[in-house]
Amino acid sequence: MSNVYDKAHELSRSLRDSDEFQQLKNLHVQVEEDEVAKRMLDNFRNVQLELQQKQMQGQQPTEEEITQAQQQFEMVQQHEVISLLMEQEQKVSTVIGDVNKIITEPLEELYGNPDDPENVQ
Amino acid sequence: MSNVYDKAHELSRSLRDSDEFQQLKNLHVQVEEDEVAKRMLDNFRNVQLELQQKQMQGQQPTEEEITQAQQQFEMVQQHEVISLLMEQEQKVSTVIGDVNKIITEPLEELYGNPDDPENVQ
Ligand SMILES: [Ca+2]
Ligand SMILES: [Ca+2]
Repeated sequence: MSNVYDKAHELSRSLRDSDEFQQLKNLHVQVEEDEVAKRMLDNFRNVQLELQQKQMQGQQPTEEEITQAQQQFEMVQQHEVISLLMEQEQKVSTVIGDVNKIITEPLEELYGNPDDPENVQ
Repeated sequence: MSNVYDKAHELSRSLRDSDEFQQLKNLHVQVEEDEVAKRMLDNFRNVQLELQQKQMQGQQPTEEEITQAQQQFEMVQQHEVISLLMEQEQKVSTVIGDVNKIITEPLEELYGNPDDPENVQ
């Protein structure tokens, strides 16, 4: 089992050293150091989070809330550094998703993946 | 980035080779080959799944459904191989959780972990 943890730490380090992560970190620092950008992004994230929490509780967001979220999304999209940051977050998130798929392959072979046509039960 | 994927495959292989996973696999095969055990476990999982889906949709399960789930849980707990399988699933799930924490450490350093007292904002 210790080998599993060693390999996890090696993977973690290679993720930290990757260009994708280093670029994400740089953009993150740029936003943190720009008071206006930081406030804009914080507001956007808070509105997103509130919407998600509502939906998780089975509540329907109001039309006003949806409009507000869309307007904030358009605003942050027009901010160059924030939009680059969000693109970079998407890239890193895709890598993490791929990595999770690779790691859980042994489990999928046991339990089957319902999305995989080979595993129709 | 290719190094990240290489490391993910190495981690996946070490997980597959681990005693924890090999034992899980053996128990899984034992249950699959025992018709009564398999049906018992399938029933249990279906009831669990239905309860979870209800709760995710914000619905309250009925008292009858909760009692039924508890009775099925006690029944599978009394089946030796199934209870060993469920214990082993718990062990592997803990390892996967630990591994996920290790892998996402670089992200946590950026975004902070709200559970970590060092990261109070
Ligand atoms: Ca090592
Ligand atoms: Ca390799």
